[in-house]
Amino acid sequence: MARIDKDRLKKQIQFIVEIDKVKNIFRQTYLADGNRKENDAEHSWHIALMAVLLQEYANEEVDVLKVMTMVLIHDLVEIDAGDTYAYDYEGAKTKREREVKAAGRIFGLLPEDQGSYMRSLWDEFEEYETADAKYAHVLDNFQPLLLNDASGGRSWQEHVVHRHQIYKRNEKVPEGALAIWETMKEIIDAHVEKGNVLDD
Amino acid sequence: MARIDKDRLKKQIQFIVEIDKVKNIFRQTYLADGNRKENDAEHSWHIALMAVLLQEYANEEVDVLKVMTMVLIHDLVEIDAGDTYAYDYEGAKTKREREVKAAGRIFGLLPEDQGSYMRSLWDEFEEYETADAKYAHVLDNFQPLLLNDASGGRSWQEHVVHRHQIYKRNEKVPEGALAIWETMKEIIDAHVEKGNVLDD
Repeated sequence: MARIDKDRLKKQIQFIVEIDKVKNIFRQTYLADGNRKENDAEHSWHIALMAVLLQEYANEEVDVLKVMTMVLIHDLVEIDAGDTYAYDYEGAKTKREREVKAAGRIFGLLPEDQGSYMRSLWDEFEEYETADAKYAHVLDNFQPLLLNDASGGRSWQEHVVHRHQIYKRNEKVPEGALAIWETMKEIIDAHVEKGNVLDD
Repeated sequence: MARIDKDRLKKQIQFIVEIDKVKNIFRQTYLADGNRKENDAEHSWHIALMAVLLQEYANEEVDVLKVMTMVLIHDLVEIDAGDTYAYDYEGAKTKREREVKAAGRIFGLLPEDQGSYMRSLWDEFEEYETADAKYAHVLDNFQPLLLNDASGGRSWQEHVVHRHQIYKRNEKVPEGALAIWETMKEIIDAHVEKGNVLDD
């Protein structure tokens, strides 16, 4: 067998154990059954699998392996920075600064080559410019919408959300996957009809 | 834009919402902080990312995209069949039958091409023959060991587990990744020293 670089494997294990903490970062979205809120690890698992299943709807061809890896790590910064709710405008002001600091610490646990790669994927996701990043954001936006729909719009009701806020939040979805956006609009509009989302 | 096959997307969405239930299937492994047990979605998220990080240790070259997809779906059958603990020998007798039935129903929700592909990945994982399946099992075995280690061997203590049971459970790990097995043995043996795992 090949000689193992024990220091390298040790760093990888430290990272793997450290990121376990993301299972304790809870989001505002309820599970489909409405019984509790979901955490970042569950959310990331869900959208990584959606990356495979929905790739045919991406406007441009995407690198699915890269997108999956990107979505699996996109919320790790919340281990230090916490989850900032989509419609928390005060929290949004300091979000970027808190998350950049977290990225430095968390990806810095890995061996340098892997840490740099993971950091580059997180940067690409945040910059929201490439086809892969746009598709990753489609998934990141579509999944909580499906759960909100399944749980009767509970999270929208609790936060008294208006249609224009959801439209604004998702305004770049059509750039990533137009067909998914058409479906998202139908779901949002149905919840406006039911009064779960407020009309403008 | 391309015309959407609405029936196809509807099936994909039904599957995506159905598999949300795996977030309620709890395993016997405690989170690294020891505060609660983890669920299948969290476990699958963790090992999908490990698939990327640890690929250099696979004995043979692996298709990481395939392995990631395989591990993301490998526990979905537990939505119907429940989690069977590694050392539950009674439960093991009916596990296969319960899981095959579950696979038929759950992957059957997808459009035929995607359902067949996901089913083939689950079959490949279960058959444990290919390099990809062996590497996927390495990850599936290594992750709970790292969590057991981090949480002070709590799950092993609660189930009064002996060293030979863990060695037996992991006997094919060296076929997938010899270097990982060497590290696993060190971790197991350290817990035997501490009395968290019983000596034979």
